[in-house]
This record gives sequence, structure tokens and C-alpha cells, in this order.
Amino acid sequence: MAKAKKSAAKKPAGKAKKYVYFFGNGKADGEGHMKALLGGKGAGLAEMTKAGVPVPPGFTITTEVCNLYYEVGKKVPEAVDKEMLVYVDKLEKATGKKFGGENPLLVSVRSGAKFSMPGMMDTILNLGLNDSTVLSLIKQTKNERFAYDSYRRFIMMFSDVAMDVPKNKFEHLFEEAKHKKGVKLDTELDAKDLREICEKFKELFKKEKGMDFPQEPLQQLKLARNAVFNSWMNDRAIYYRKQNDIPHDLGTAVNVQSMVFGNMGNDSGTGVGFTRNPATGENVFYGEYLINAQGEDVVAGVRTPQPIASLEKDMPEVYKQLRQITSKLEKHYRDIQDFEFTIEKGRLFMLQTRSGKRTAKAAVRIAVEMVSEKLITKEEAVLRVAPATLDQLLHPVFDPKAELQVIAKGLPASPGAATGKAVFTANDAVEWDEKGEHTILVRQETCPDDIHGMDAANGILTARGGMTSHAAVVARSMGKCCVAGCEDIKVDEHNKTMTTKSGLVIKEGEWISIDGSTGKVIKGKVPTVEPKLEGEFGTFMKWADSYRTLTVRANADVPRDGKVARDFGAEGIGLCRTEHMFFDADRLPHMRAMILATDEAGRRKALEKLLPMQRSDFKGLFESMEGFGVTVRLLDPPLHEFLPKREELMVDIAKAEASGKNTIETEGLKKALELIKTNGTELEKAKILLARVEELHEFNPMLGHRGCRLGITYPEITEMQATAIFEAAAEIIKAGKKVVPEVMVPLVGNVKEFKDQKAIIDKMAQKVIKEKGVKMQYMVGTMIEVPRAAVTADKIAEEAEFFSFGTNDLTQTALGFSRDDAGKFTKAYIDKFIFEKDPFQTLDQDGVGLLMIDAVNKGKSVRPGIKLGICGEHGGDPASVEFCHRIGLSYVSCSPYRVPIARLAAAQAGINFPAKKAAAKKTAKKK
Amino acid sequence: MAKAKKSAAKKPAGKAKKYVYFFGNGKADGEGHMKALLGGKGAGLAEMTKAGVPVPPGFTITTEVCNLYYEVGKKVPEAVDKEMLVYVDKLEKATGKKFGGENPLLVSVRSGAKFSMPGMMDTILNLGLNDSTVLSLIKQTKNERFAYDSYRRFIMMFSDVAMDVPKNKFEHLFEEAKHKKGVKLDTELDAKDLREICEKFKELFKKEKGMDFPQEPLQQLKLARNAVFNSWMNDRAIYYRKQNDIPHDLGTAVNVQSMVFGNMGNDSGTGVGFTRNPATGENVFYGEYLINAQGEDVVAGVRTPQPIASLEKDMPEVYKQLRQITSKLEKHYRDIQDFEFTIEKGRLFMLQTRSGKRTAKAAVRIAVEMVSEKLITKEEAVLRVAPATLDQLLHPVFDPKAELQVIAKGLPASPGAATGKAVFTANDAVEWDEKGEHTILVRQETCPDDIHGMDAANGILTARGGMTSHAAVVARSMGKCCVAGCEDIKVDEHNKTMTTKSGLVIKEGEWISIDGSTGKVIKGKVPTVEPKLEGEFGTFMKWADSYRTLTVRANADVPRDGKVARDFGAEGIGLCRTEHMFFDADRLPHMRAMILATDEAGRRKALEKLLPMQRSDFKGLFESMEGFGVTVRLLDPPLHEFLPKREELMVDIAKAEASGKNTIETEGLKKALELIKTNGTELEKAKILLARVEELHEFNPMLGHRGCRLGITYPEITEMQATAIFEAAAEIIKAGKKVVPEVMVPLVGNVKEFKDQKAIIDKMAQKVIKEKGVKMQYMVGTMIEVPRAAVTADKIAEEAEFFSFGTNDLTQTALGFSRDDAGKFTKAYIDKFIFEKDPFQTLDQDGVGLLMIDAVNKGKSVRPGIKLGICGEHGGDPASVEFCHRIGLSYVSCSPYRVPIARLAAAQAGINFPAKKAAAKKTAKKK
Repeated sequence: MAKAKKSAAKKPAGKAKKYVYFFGNGKADGEGHMKALLGGKGAGLAEMTKAGVPVPPGFTITTEVCNLYYEVGKKVPEAVDKEMLVYVDKLEKATGKKFGGENPLLVSVRSGAKFSMPGMMDTILNLGLNDSTVLSLIKQTKNERFAYDSYRRFIMMFSDVAMDVPKNKFEHLFEEAKHKKGVKLDTELDAKDLREICEKFKELFKKEKGMDFPQEPLQQLKLARNAVFNSWMNDRAIYYRKQNDIPHDLGTAVNVQSMVFGNMGNDSGTGVGFTRNPATGENVFYGEYLINAQGEDVVAGVRTPQPIASLEKDMPEVYKQLRQITSKLEKHYRDIQDFEFTIEKGRLFMLQTRSGKRTAKAAVRIAVEMVSEKLITKEEAVLRVAPATLDQLLHPVFDPKAELQVIAKGLPASPGAATGKAVFTANDAVEWDEKGEHTILVRQETCPDDIHGMDAANGILTARGGMTSHAAVVARSMGKCCVAGCEDIKVDEHNKTMTTKSGLVIKEGEWISIDGSTGKVIKGKVPTVEPKLEGEFGTFMKWADSYRTLTVRANADVPRDGKVARDFGAEGIGLCRTEHMFFDADRLPHMRAMILATDEAGRRKALEKLLPMQRSDFKGLFESMEGFGVTVRLLDPPLHEFLPKREELMVDIAKAEASGKNTIETEGLKKALELIKTNGTELEKAKILLARVEELHEFNPMLGHRGCRLGITYPEITEMQATAIFEAAAEIIKAGKKVVPEVMVPLVGNVKEFKDQKAIIDKMAQKVIKEKGVKMQYMVGTMIEVPRAAVTADKIAEEAEFFSFGTNDLTQTALGFSRDDAGKFTKAYIDKFIFEKDPFQTLDQDGVGLLMIDAVNKGKSVRPGIKLGICGEHGGDPASVEFCHRIGLSYVSCSPYRVPIARLAAAQAGINFPAKKAAAKKTAKKK
Repeated sequence: MAKAKKSAAKKPAGKAKKYVYFFGNGKADGEGHMKALLGGKGAGLAEMTKAGVPVPPGFTITTEVCNLYYEVGKKVPEAVDKEMLVYVDKLEKATGKKFGGENPLLVSVRSGAKFSMPGMMDTILNLGLNDSTVLSLIKQTKNERFAYDSYRRFIMMFSDVAMDVPKNKFEHLFEEAKHKKGVKLDTELDAKDLREICEKFKELFKKEKGMDFPQEPLQQLKLARNAVFNSWMNDRAIYYRKQNDIPHDLGTAVNVQSMVFGNMGNDSGTGVGFTRNPATGENVFYGEYLINAQGEDVVAGVRTPQPIASLEKDMPEVYKQLRQITSKLEKHYRDIQDFEFTIEKGRLFMLQTRSGKRTAKAAVRIAVEMVSEKLITKEEAVLRVAPATLDQLLHPVFDPKAELQVIAKGLPASPGAATGKAVFTANDAVEWDEKGEHTILVRQETCPDDIHGMDAANGILTARGGMTSHAAVVARSMGKCCVAGCEDIKVDEHNKTMTTKSGLVIKEGEWISIDGSTGKVIKGKVPTVEPKLEGEFGTFMKWADSYRTLTVRANADVPRDGKVARDFGAEGIGLCRTEHMFFDADRLPHMRAMILATDEAGRRKALEKLLPMQRSDFKGLFESMEGFGVTVRLLDPPLHEFLPKREELMVDIAKAEASGKNTIETEGLKKALELIKTNGTELEKAKILLARVEELHEFNPMLGHRGCRLGITYPEITEMQATAIFEAAAEIIKAGKKVVPEVMVPLVGNVKEFKDQKAIIDKMAQKVIKEKGVKMQYMVGTMIEVPRAAVTADKIAEEAEFFSFGTNDLTQTALGFSRDDAGKFTKAYIDKFIFEKDPFQTLDQDGVGLLMIDAVNKGKSVRPGIKLGICGEHGGDPASVEFCHRIGLSYVSCSPYRVPIARLAAAQAGINFPAKKAAAKKTAKKK
């Protein structure tokens, strides 16, 4: 505050400065853009008033007064007090009512800062009521009960908010009164009861504060105003600002607005509505209202509201005016409006208007139609749809009419809705699928071994793992619904059951449904509705693409995914994870044979079997992309992922030994045991297999023998994969089509690792080019996914032709968070605001982002035209896409089903941050 | 080469430039500092000659000629050729010998670049021999066999090195001759045989090259010279330069030096020696020689050499001259010299002199004595001892006279030598120790559970884990000998045996010995010798400390370690790992009870039991440091480390179930099961325990729920630890002693984590200060051990009062290397030069170092006086200590036994990089 005091000394308060801004009767001192001075609410009220909308008149005391208040030691300077009196006077004139008069002026007092701060201060309504005006109110409304109810509410609100008398003390008295009368509901108290309660409330106030309840409306107003200023520095407001990086010296404004009542008879009423249908986007007037009622009544559902069209019959003039006003507001704000209105004795007042929340479907339709109505530009239309909401358009949803029996809740890991019979192993999912059954695959957690089962199931449910666990990542890439990390259930894979917290047991074959957009797990079969991409969507996305400078690629491992990605508009593949090709039933044995081989010759023999399979995979993938770039990443995961689980082997061996058997219990292991080429019992073979598994076991596989470390220790793997890539490309080229394969080396941290692998890749390329007699271009680049790669990117760029940021692993290593384990503390971290969002979902721009910027700058310093992309999960997250645009990446790559989201996010970034476009043009010219 | 050609065009060759430098008979054209022009060897020969040392005369063709050679297309310009002839002539005059003459001039031809490049080109000896001079040589030496042996060697060397005729073809002929004669040894061939072989060699040469073997010595010389130039660009030289960052345009010089022979009769001889005793450092002349012999004979051990003192009797004049020369050389080079000499017909020639290798003990003594002899300054003395070698002085070693039966080799993880009976569990080590037995604890790998056993054993041997595995780190901190990652052995902990690769089985109770400085594992009992720190050591370290600006602290967890650290000169504790206090038998049950508690109340109850124990630990530690700073790190490891192993439980449960028992087999688990407070069988309890272990199980514990993440999710742990620290400090202060506790929050990546923990620590501090009525200062700081902390260090420094770089974890996260798993590829990485050294031993300055520099700059930008330290393993590595000095850290902290090493390394850094000192002074003045 020391700093603030200085400025107060320089600037004597109240001289020639305006501290209060009036609005009412079509005129307003302020304007919509003056949010810093008037707060968001005050500026909005001024704007509406100016636009000719009937708004209950009032005035706004500026944020500067708040700052003055603190500068001079929690006092409002006299000059400001005087100025306020002028506007109270003006308000009385504008309303024809008077503070404390027979036609009493009642006002609401609300805070309103530049940035919305929910929960900073409660509103005070009905200020101006006292022992005398309450009687005037009775006269006016002919409703004694309403008047005393309003008064007792005001006493309580004012005492609590402005005078620090705890609300619960009043509530206690109120409950006592009900008890005494033997009733349960507030509404069962009559006017007399309420009048008595008002008396008791005032007594309580006196006892607590040692003074009478303030009767003078002006005194009430000053106290309420100061209470608003005080609330600016209360604990929760300070905490909120700290957490949201809002400066403490902005201050809050105070809005004083005359009350209107919709319950003053049959010529009064209240209602809410939308200027268009918020569910479908159709351009029809939409809403509902109640005659002789207050706002709460509509919300509370005590009476059934009428559709707004009826108002035309009930009050044709008011209806006409409402249509005119709301049309005007929509034109003025150039967006669908969600409004509230009150009719007081035939007179219409607008209490609020704001942009209406809408479904994704509506958002797209409204945006496109508003362009044809010439209400907004195409650019604005593109900015109007939140990219993440497109998900709703791309996945099936539950039939909205269905009733849902929710039995558990997990993480909404991959959107969509699915229903099927519960199965508990990947093999079962495949078997049941072959029999034509729909299934939900329920697992403790999934592993790469389960992919065929995930593919066969309609949806996936896991008890463990976060938003970027194996199940979640794979499901999203398949566009398949998934609820992950559902800690409410216990999965017993052995007995094929799952048990919810409440003890409900779901057995194999029972119907369950999951909602991957909400995380809900539902008992029984729920019908789903397939979404349809309608006409507006295509138009909208075409517009979006025209503003986009970032290319959007997809992460796809098999031709089928490539096809989906193309259909969603992907311009290439940014990440093909070759290892996913090794889990198929016809390949896994060769992969395992390679791992179990004791020498290079043995490994080469197994790799020879894999070569033609990989080649045909790559060929299909190249074909699916129709000439767009395809980045193929060399083998990445540690080899033990391809072998049976260590614990499973240990337990099976222990069981066999303890029971004196020579056979192994778990069916799934038998196939793996066949690969052990010795004579011996299953038990003996299992021990040999376990020995190899133990050799490969790692304490921290994430930081272990994987990525390019595999290719460096086993160069023959890189040789095989490079050969398969180039041979596939050669076949495409021979068929007269275009392809420029991009070979990507994973997990590079040191340029020397990259050089080692690039030498092998180049050698294989030359060999294939020579053997096949084709001309072929190709690129060799690297992932930037460990911090050392980022900080030495200048060295790496000397050798690498492109970078792709692997932000999943980069987040894991930069933060030291294992994404499979972080679930244990992520919730506490988000609750304590340590991270605002899960850093595995939305890029940690302030941390991981700094490493990326460093890498971009260093990379470009050495190789100005270097191609830069991102292929982590963040490539499909709108905020992260914007960041990638801002720091100058060339492309983002994401799951096929997120391609439209990324396209839209990139378009919005292109509009909001055009600098990069200009810079890009400049660079292009220079060349 | 394009660039080089340009410079050739500008600078016509041979004009007024000197390309050949002569040395001989006390004069030399070059000087010792001209290494760039003459190469290291050429400059050294010039220097020795100038110093009046009798060196066989010769000349050096400069590195510039090498560059010219490549510029003009692999030719030596005629002018240079002419210049060389002048020097051949001069050499003939200087030696009184003539190329091809009756007293034939024979020369050696050697390469010699600015930087030593071992293995770049083989030497050619005896150049000048031909069919005629070989006869002259016979006349001179009266030794026909020697002459023909020299000739055949020359033909082979020259053909191989200069003419690309593969050596093995000659060797084949040689073997054939032996076979034909029916002999096995080269020495069994007589003069006639060798003469015939010379003929055959020449025939082979003619067949291979289509020309006669060059007979003309000058032609031989030119071809040999060009071969040296060609060798500059051979594959291994290019590879070597790439790996060592040596520029390719330096070129190599060529040294042509006249041959001398020590086997020309009884007035000839050869020998080697040291100017002082290289083992003890004693200032006595030291060496041995042979009369009528060549250098090889001394090395080959065919005849037993005489001690050099005998030379005084054999050749008093020569001896006197040798003493004079070597004394002179020692004075000239101001260091102990390791020299080689040859006496040819009574004439002494020095063939080489260089600084002598010495033991650490000798190095210290020589350095200290040379200062008192006024030969070197104290600064130089401090620079003379390699810090790492001090290890030899601080740990026991095997009796040098003992014979060792080495049965396996692992990593030299913690220096020293130990002998004992093999035991295979920590409990056995304790039991045997209590019976007075010496033991070596042999484990697959160690875990925190084993600490009591490691403490009881004389040494530790593990089959798995790297230089920074748990066993290695803990052993070093205990100053205990350890061989880790010994993949040559298989450990069967169940049957208590270890088996070597050769099948040798060592059973429990058998004697083994381990050498932690070499990694050797030895069968049987080997006596060890305790080192004594003698007088010079104290003097030397005192000098070292005077040049040091870095403070050296120790990593110590218990008062005993603190005491050792102080004895070794530690000025404080940089890292106290509080978790090590929880593994003691009286504490582990409380720790486990806390982990198994299902709510906060349960945890608090267990923590209350731990509080007094922690308080007394801290008090002891504070006392051991006598007022020096003590940094206490809050609990760091994941909680599951304190529970029994998951696999062990799984297997035991499986066994019990399969055999229908209700009891658990593994003895070690029974104690843990007692903590499960339910009625039930062991099996049932084991299942409950396993369920909790499963809940805590992590895929990547390194990146899991540990560090400050524990304190954030369980604030009561931080409360207890902070309270214990401050209460301990309060007791010290009440006793009138000084202490400023430094509380360190581990694994911070985001300033908000730090703020959360600091708030708790501050609260506890205020509470203790108030309760105990003491005045207390304290500091709260953080580890910088994840990359995010490094790149956001400016944000963190706003809150943290000190940083300590945890370079173990920072290396793991920055590189994405798990130090427990990296062993699987580290060897391949070092073999392929991807990392020159294990980054867990020597700081990766080019990668991790960049993050540290970033953090230092960002930290200082916000808090200029911030205290910066390092407490990873690197704190005891000399190269890393130097780096820490250069980037401006305030202190390093290392294992107690490495404190002297760090002190010396810091002193050398202070001398070599004084800039920081000046800068520090400047900063001090500003304040």
C-alpha cells in the first residue's frame, strides 16, 4: 500500500474528477469499454442503457473511489460523498421514487470489478426498506407478506454483508419461529409471522452491534457501499486474485440500481429467454415467463412457466417491445443473447443480457447464419466457436431422453458414449466381438498387450491411470470412448467382476454404459445417438482453414487411422508409432523372438520376418496420406513391454512350485513359453523366460532403455525399420505417386545419438535407392522430448532436418512427473492451484513452454528453415495449439478425432496472433 | 578443403618461410612453446636440446607443410623438398654419419601434432637401411643377426606404414620360415635365416607394388614423410579428432631423428628412471638400466636390469652426466621427470623426458618439498596433485604384496579395499557382525531396507546398479568400500550363494575380498593396509584452502557422519537426508504405521512418535557441525520404499494359497504384518498389506509421489519435520550455542509448491520460537533438481532463500536417464563416445550445465545474494567442482570421504579461474 499512498499524495482527491457515473432513461455517463473504471457490470449497464434498452436506472461508483478509500485509511472522501448525493437525487428523479418516501426508492447494491470475481461479495437487495417504507410497500403491492418477507431478507443480508453479523444467527431465529408455529416450509409463515421476525431481527442486530438497525436509507447506502470496498480486500478475494494473477490495485466499482418487481399484479411478470435456440442454433425467439412473479419463482419451478410466445397474447405491447429490444441487443452485441426481464405494472425492464451459452451444434449454425445475415464477419464467426466443444459433434452421445443409473465416476478420458456387455480381458473382447456382441472392456489398467481388445470393444473403462494413461491415449487415437482412472470401482480381472464403492457387483456379460465426455459409468444398456455433421459444419471449417497458418497433422499408426484423419482434414501424419504395429497376433511372436535372442544373428533372423510386415504397414500409411508428409518414429518403448508381465510370471511360478505342479496356470503365458526353445516343462521354460524378463526389468521404464537408446544398442532394429520405410516409399514412387518419408529418431538428448542413428538411416536409404533404382527424397529429424534436447537444440539442428516436440515426455521429464503415477497428487495440486490445469492435458506454457521456446530459437539460429512440430497429446488441446502458433511452430499433430478441434484452434490463433503470418511472409520474401 | 585452397592461392609456398627446424648438439631452431608449428614432440625435442641435454640430433618438418601438402593435392612443394635436403646435410654433419655411407645415418620418422593423438600413425625406425648399409651396420656392431633383424623390421614397417603393403603378409612369410626350420620363437632364427627373410620380404614388396624395395635413403625418407602427412587424414585420425573436438586443419609435423643403439658393446647401454621416488615421493635418484641392450630388452624382462646406482661403478662419467642432466631437466621442467636414456659407445643420449607419474602420496610430498626447495610456488604445488588421487590416501588398500585371485569385476563404486565372509541378507550381516565376524554383504541390489546391514558389513557387493545406485551412493556416504553392478556374478539370495561366470560358487561364510577402487572381486581373505595421513598432507591442504573461494560442505545424515565430515574439513552440511533416519529398527514401525493409516488422525498419531526421534537426530547433527550451516531436506522418497516389496508379498501370497496354508513364508514380512490391526490369519493380513502396497505402487517412482509432493498431500509430515528441526535448534540455542537451521524443500518444480511448504515451515518456526522463548534465525530454500525448477528459477528465487542443485535427479530428468537403469546402455554410450564420461559421475556440463547456468542467472537476477550450492554426487567430482566454481556457486556438498578431494578441486578452480573471486569482491563492495 506504500506505493498507493504516494499517488494519493500527488493527486488530491475530488478535484475536477468524476467519481460517479449515472445510467437510466436512455442515457448513461459511461460506456461499454470503460470496464477498468466502472467494472464489467457497470460498463454493461451503461452500454445497455445507451442502446435504448429500458434498464432500471442507477449509478456506478468507480473503481478509483475504491483505491482512494484504501489510500486515506478506509474512508470515502467527503467530496465523493457529496457527488454521490447528487446522483441519489438524480436517481430519485429518474424513478419518481424517493429514499424513505411514500413511493419508496429501493435499490440493489452490487460489487463489480474489471475482471469477474465470483463470490467476492454478496449482493444486497431491497436497500431503502425500513419500518416506514415497508408500510408504503404494502400499500403499493397490496401484499403485506411480500413486503415483510422483503424487509426481513434485507435486514439479514445487510447485517451479514455490511455489518458482520453472522447470517446463521438470523437463520437460527427464523428456524425457531417456524418450530414454534409447527411448520416446516418458509412459505407456511404468514405476514404476521414475518413482521414479528423483522422485529426479532432488529433486536438481534441491536444486541450484536449495540445500535439500532439503520433506518435512514442514505446511511444504509453508505454502509453498504463501504462494505463493497471492504470486500475487495477480504481473504477469499485476495486469494482469488493471487491465483488468477489479477493485480490487487484495480479496485472494485459499486453499482447502485433501483429495484423493480414483477410480482405487483397481473400487469407484472418476469421471464428469461434466448434470441435464438441455444440447442440447435435455429433463429427463433426462445424463452419462458410467469405473470405476477419474481425471478426466483421461474427458477424455483414452483409454478410452470409459459412459453414466451404466449406473452404475445397476454401483453401484446410488452411482447412487441421485448422482441424489438432483444433483436436490438443481439444486433448490438452481435451475438445470441441470454436475457432476463421484469415487467412492473406493464412496464418492461431488462435486468441482464449476456452472450448466450449454446451447444456446439448451435454455435456453428449461429456463427454461419450470422455471417449470411451480415451481422458478423467470417473472422468473427470463426472466433465464436470454442474449439473444444467440437468434440460434441464428432462422437456419439447418449439419447438425451434416456434415464441414467450412474454407478461410478472416472476421468473423461476419451469423449463419446458407448454401451456394451462388460468383459475383463482383451481376448474376451475379441471373442465376444466375433460373436457379434457389443462390449465394454473393463481393466485395472491397459497395456500395449490389450490393443486388439480395445479395438474390438465399444468402449474402455479402467480403474487406474490418468488422462494420458495408455488407455486414454490409445482410445483417443482410435476415437473410441474411454473412462479412465475410475477409482470408484475395483476390478477383479481374475474372477471377471467389477465392484463399485456401494458394493454393486457387475459380472461378465452384464450391460454397462460409459460416457467418455463426463466420466460417468452407468448400469444397463443406454441407447446412443450418432452425431451428424450438417451443412454449416463444412462451411465453417472451410472458413477456419483460411485463417490458419499452422498445418494440422494427425497421429496415426495404421492405414485405417490415416484414412479417418484425412476425412477430418489432416494434412499429413505427424507421428506414426511403429511399435503399435508389433502387437498384432502375427507379429508379437517375432518381436518376442527378437528380444529373447541371445545374439545379433538371432535378432536379425527375427527382424527379417518383421521387415515385410512393416513395409506393407508403411505403404498403406503413405497411400492413405495421398502425398502429404508422413513422419515415422523409430521403435520407442522399452523391450520388456513386449514380454509377459514380470509379476504374472513370478506368481505363476510360485504357485506351480508350491503345489508341486510343472505347468503354468495363466493361459495368456502359454504362447510366450512356446518361444523358449528348450526341452523342458512349462515351469522350467517359465523360469527361463522370467530370467530374461528380469534382465530387462527397469525401475523407471520411462527413463530407461528405450527410444534411440534401443537403436544405438541394437543397430539392426534401426536398419530393419529404415529399410522397411524406404522400400515402402520406393514402391509408392514406382507406382508414379508422391511420397517424402520423414524418419524420426525418438528420445534424442545428445546430437551424437542422432548422428549415430542418422548414419544408419542414410546408409539404408542409399542402399534401397540403389537396389530399387528410384529417385527418392527423404528427411531425418528428431523428437525433442527430454530437456537436454531442448537446451542443446542448436547442436541437434546442425544434423536434424526437423524437430517434433514430444510434449508428453517433455512434460514428464521437465516436471519430473510420471503421467502414469501423477494421478496420486494431481488432484491435490489442482485443488491447491499449484497447476491450474493438468499439465498433461494443457501444455505448461510457463515451464515446459520455456524449454520449447529455447529449442525453437536455438534450432532456428542454426537452421532457419527448420520444420518444427508437436506430436504430444497437447497437439489437440486448443490453448496449447495457440501457444504452438505463437512460438512459431510449423505444424501440430494430434489424434485423428481431434483434428477438427486443432484446425479451429489454429485458425483462432491465426486471427488473434497474426504477427507470425506477417513474419512468415517476410521470411518467404527474403528467400 | 575449399577454404584451405583459397589461402594457398594467396600465400605462394616456400617464399621466405621456414619449413624445417633443426635440433642437435645443444642448438635448436625451435622452442618449447611452438607446439602448433612443430607439434608436441618436435617442440619438446627442441626444448631439451636447447637446455643442453644430449639428444640424438634431427629435424622437424612443420605442420604448415602438412597443410600445404593437402592444398596442392598431396604433394610437398619443391622448395620444401630442397629445404629438407639442407637439413639432411646438416644432420649428417652433426652425427658424422651419412645416408647410405659406410658409417650409415639411420633415422626414425614419427608424426607429431599439436595435441597428442595416440595411434594416429605408427613409427618407422631404422630408416636408411638398405642392402649396402646393412653390411656397414654389421661391420660396426659386429652383430650380423642384429643388423638383419633391424633390416627385416624396417622393410616390414616401411612397407606397411608408408607403402600400404599389409603387415600380415610379411608376418605370414616370417611364420613360414620358422615353421620350415621347425622352431617356435623369433629368437631361434639366426643371422642367415634373417638375411633370407629380408630377401623374401623384398620379393614380396616387388610383387605387391610392381617395383623394387626403395634402396635410396632419401627416397625412403620422402615416402615416409608423405606417409605421415597422409596419416593425418586416415579414418581413425579423423574419427579421433571428431570425438575430441580437435580441428582438422591443424596438420601434423614430421620428426626425423638419428638412431642411437645401446647394444653396440659393453660401452653401450640403456635405461629408464625417475628423478625422485614416484611411489613415496622421497627425493632420491631412482631407476634401472642394462649394459649392451636396447630399450625393448629392459621392458621385455629377458635380462634383469641393474639398479641405477650401479651405473656409478660401471660408467662413473656417464652416471655423473646422467645425474647432472636429469637434475637439470627437473629444474627446467620444475617437476619430477620420468626419463629414458641410451648410451652408445660411452656417449649418453636422452631419448625422452616427461613429467613422471606418481602415487598420490608421492605427489603431495613432492609438491610440498619442491616448495621448500623454492622450485615451485605454493600455487603450483596445489595444482600438481590431481584431486581424485587423494582417494588413495583416505581409504584402506590391499597389501601390495598379496596375490589376488580375481574372480569377477564390477564397477568401482566406493573406493577402498575390504575383506570378509560373504553374507546375503542385511540381517545376516548384522548378526555375524555381532558375533565379531567380518563380512561382505552380497546383494542383487540394495534398497533402503538394507542400510543396517550395509553399516554392519566391511564392504558391499551388488550384481546390479550403476555408479550412482543405492548401494554406491550409500556406501560412499559411509566411506565404505563397494563394488556395484558386478554383472559377472549371479546372486541367489534365497539359497545364499553367488556364482561367477566361470561357474565358481561362493557360499555364505566363504571369504571374499573386494577392491572398490578397481571393481575387482577376489576369492579368499586378503590383508588390507590402513592409510596414514602424514605431515605433508596437512600442510598441503592448508595451502589448498587458502586458494579456495567455494565452501565445501558434506552430505551427512547422522551425527557420526557429521563428525567424520568435520574431521575431513567440511564447513557445514549441505544435505541431510531425513528419510535415512526412518529406517532404523525403532523407527520403521512408526513410519509404516503412518503410511498404513487411513486418515490424517492416524498419520498424526504415528508422526508424534517419530517427532522426538527426529529432534534428537537433528540436535546431534547440529552439534557435530559446531555452528556451521546445516541444510536439512524434508522427506523425499516415495512412501512405498518404507513398505515390504510388492513382488515379495505377491509371491508369498500365491505360495500360501497354492499350498493351502494360512501363513507367510518370508521371515522379514512378519514384522510388517503385525502392523495390520485386524483379527485374521497372516495370509489375510498379507492381502490387506498388499492392497495398500498396490495403491502406492508406481510405474516410475523416480517421477512419482515423492519430494514436496508428499508434504503437499500430507502437510502433517512437513509439520512434524519442521517442528523437530526447530525444537532441536531451540535446544542448541538455549545451551548458548549457535545454529542457523536451513530447511530445504525437495523436488520443487513450481514456485507455488514451494510457497505451500514454506507457509507450513514458517508457521512451525513461529510456534516453536514462541513456545520455547528463543530468538532463532533460519532459512528456507529448495533443491533445484527438475528442469522446470531451473528454467523458472527467477520465480522460485522470489520465495526461496537458497538453491541447492540436486544434480543426481537433475541429470536423470534432463537426460531422461534413470540412474538405476542406465547401466543397460551407458557402456554402449561411452564406447560410442556419445558421452565421454558417465554423466552421473561427472556433470554433463554441456547439457545439465546449461540448465544450471540458466538457474543461477535467473536466481541472481531476482535475489542477487542468493546462496547457491550443489548436493548431488557431482559435488565430490573434481571437474564438476570446477564447473560449480566457474558458474558462481557458493558451496559444494559431497560425501564426507570426498571432502578433501572437493577442497583441492575447489582450490585448483580458484587458482585457474580467479575471475569469480574478483567478481565476488566487487559484489561485496557494492553492498
